[in-house]
Amino acid sequence: MKTMGLSQLVLVNPRQFPDPQADAMASGASDLLLNARVVSSLTEALNGTLFATALTARRRELAVEPLWAREAAGELVVAAGTGDVALVFGNETSGLSNDEVALCRRWASIPTQPGPQSGGSSLNLAQAVQVMCYELRMAAVDPGTLPQIAGAGDLASHDDIEGLLSHLERAAFVSGYLDPDQPKRFMPRMRRLLARARVEHEEISILRGLLTAFEKCAKKID
Amino acid sequence: MKTMGLSQLVLVNPRQFPDPQADAMASGASDLLLNARVVSSLTEALNGTLFATALTARRRELAVEPLWAREAAGELVVAAGTGDVALVFGNETSGLSNDEVALCRRWASIPTQPGPQSGGSSLNLAQAVQVMCYELRMAAVDPGTLPQIAGAGDLASHDDIEGLLSHLERAAFVSGYLDPDQPKRFMPRMRRLLARARVEHEEISILRGLLTAFEKCAKKID
Repeated sequence: MKTMGLSQLVLVNPRQFPDPQADAMASGASDLLLNARVVSSLTEALNGTLFATALTARRRELAVEPLWAREAAGELVVAAGTGDVALVFGNETSGLSNDEVALCRRWASIPTQPGPQSGGSSLNLAQAVQVMCYELRMAAVDPGTLPQIAGAGDLASHDDIEGLLSHLERAAFVSGYLDPDQPKRFMPRMRRLLARARVEHEEISILRGLLTAFEKCAKKID
Repeated sequence: MKTMGLSQLVLVNPRQFPDPQADAMASGASDLLLNARVVSSLTEALNGTLFATALTARRRELAVEPLWAREAAGELVVAAGTGDVALVFGNETSGLSNDEVALCRRWASIPTQPGPQSGGSSLNLAQAVQVMCYELRMAAVDPGTLPQIAGAGDLASHDDIEGLLSHLERAAFVSGYLDPDQPKRFMPRMRRLLARARVEHEEISILRGLLTAFEKCAKKID
């Protein structure tokens, strides 16, 4: 939850809370457990909320139409612009009752591989919570720019690339790899490769240094 | 992994394997552990693959450009059309080394809430694996139609709705709630509400039964 930017945890009738095992597992997120609200019913938990979505892997009768996790996350994020919204999960063993699902305005499912029995197989509670929190974050927050690659240098300029290509062609002739009268598709292919590789300025120097060394060897053999 | 439809697990230098704890936790997925391939290096694990993506939360120098999890999953699924692809995860404590990341053609990150220290906070291994397997499934497999709501009946017809609206107007007059000379916006609002509610055929009968009961009471009071 915390890693995905969520902070409000409400526990309905926990068997034990606070729980030393929960504290031990909440590495770096103990504030979230400290601030968790403990209530005695789902009704109490949902008091004051605007919209709640129940997560369930089971088919539900007489409930509102379901959505897949991704669409449900989008809907929740929109509703969160107007008021508090809730994601409702059942416990690991028995899940949510039909009455609990009925208290929610929506139910949602995470797509899974069909199991050997009937419908889809179902995720552990922790895994389902992770997927939904991730989908909420993806729906709510622009992930932003990825970390800059510190080693990444400036792109090679047009002149850099043309210089390298000429050098490569010369070295290919000197080495005897390329017949000047029958160059075939060598240069167009190298040009294509360099374009795809988005070569950096500094790499041009390295490659030209290598080519120069090759040329010297080739001339000595000559 | 199995819930998301993945089956090929390769373990590099596991501390202990087979492991009774792993067996105990793999409820319903013991076949996946039974068929896991154990190798002694990442190089060996990647032999024969076409494309590998490393998952890491840390900034990497001198590596290829990173992608966010969702785009990375799309790229992997496209590559999987041509050959075997791999998702590479480090272990829980130390993650992947730079050398290991360098063996992969791509590295990817899962967007997270920025932590109190520097960059993003990072997920547990199991949670990161869950998110990536989910994203792969979403990129590869149409989730299909959601479970049919068994309790869902036929939509009310146009005639049903118009009948209910007339009945509602009549009952509103009889009850004294609505002044026939000043009906204001009552009917347009009710029409809008019914449209949004996508009322079902069977619900029309229930609502009209209720209205009839109201009308009877109103007439008695009259």
